[in-house]
Amino acid sequence: MKNVLGTNVITQIGIIVHDIEKTSQAYADFFGIEKPESFWTDAVEKAETEYRGKSTPARAKLAFFDMGALQLELIQPDEHQSTWREFLEEHGEGVQHIAFVVEGLKEKVQIMESSGMSLIQKGEYTGGRYAYMDTLQDLKVIFELLENDK
Amino acid sequence: MKNVLGTNVITQIGIIVHDIEKTSQAYADFFGIEKPESFWTDAVEKAETEYRGKSTPARAKLAFFDMGALQLELIQPDEHQSTWREFLEEHGEGVQHIAFVVEGLKEKVQIMESSGMSLIQKGEYTGGRYAYMDTLQDLKVIFELLENDK
Repeated sequence: MKNVLGTNVITQIGIIVHDIEKTSQAYADFFGIEKPESFWTDAVEKAETEYRGKSTPARAKLAFFDMGALQLELIQPDEHQSTWREFLEEHGEGVQHIAFVVEGLKEKVQIMESSGMSLIQKGEYTGGRYAYMDTLQDLKVIFELLENDK
Repeated sequence: MKNVLGTNVITQIGIIVHDIEKTSQAYADFFGIEKPESFWTDAVEKAETEYRGKSTPARAKLAFFDMGALQLELIQPDEHQSTWREFLEEHGEGVQHIAFVVEGLKEKVQIMESSGMSLIQKGEYTGGRYAYMDTLQDLKVIFELLENDK
C-alpha cells in the first residue's frame, strides 16, 4: 500500500467564516492572545487563482493562529465564486479543509485526479502554492495540498 | 488576558460520517495503512451519556487515525439524538469538532457556560470523560474537552 501524499501530518485546519474580524477576536479572547493581523490573499495577477479550471478574481481574507503543532486558519471569502464561497453557501460557517505540506504538488494532484479526486482550486502565495482537492465524497473534508519553495 | 482552557493544543479532529467502514477504508487506502478497528461507544449505563441535560441511549461507532501530532476521529452516529446525529442532520458529513485535553473539565465547562457557551453533551469513556461545548456561534466549530484520568 502506498501513501498518496507521502505524508499524514495535518498542518492546518481551515474554517470558513462570515466576519473574520469578529471571529478572530473571539479566538483571541478565548485563548488569551493578541488578535492576529488578517490580510487578503493576492490578486489574481499574482496568485494566478484558478477555480474549477478557470481564472478567477476571487480572494479571501485570512487570519492564522498557532495551535500546538498545527495552524488554525480563518477564511472570509469575497463575493466571487471560489472553493471558499462555495463552502459558505452550501454548508455555512465551519471547517472547510485540512491541509498537508507535500513535495511535488503537481504530481500529487495528477495522482489524485486519476483516482477521481478533482482539483477544485489552485493558486500561488508568497513562498509557495496550494491546491484544494475534491476529497469530499471519499474523505468527507476537502484536502488542501501546500508546496513551499525551498 | 487568560486562556480559558489552559491549552491551545488541538489533539483531535472529529468527522461525522454516514458509513464508518466505507470512509475508514477510504482513509486507510489513501494513506497506505491498515484499516483500524472501529468500535461502538459504551452504552449509557457505563458512559453516563447526557445530551442537552438528559440521559440518552445515543451511541456512535468510532475509528481513530494517527495523523502527525493529532488524531483524526471518524464518527458514525446511531439513530438516537446526540451532538453527532444533530450535526449529521443539520450539516451532513464533515468536521464536527476539534478537541483539547484539559485538566479540571468540570470547572472549564462551568467557565465556558458562564460565557454563554453551553454544554451540548457529556459522557465517560474508559480512562476519562468528554464534554462537547456549543462554541459554534463564537468559534464556528464545536470544541470538545477531554479529561484523562491520571
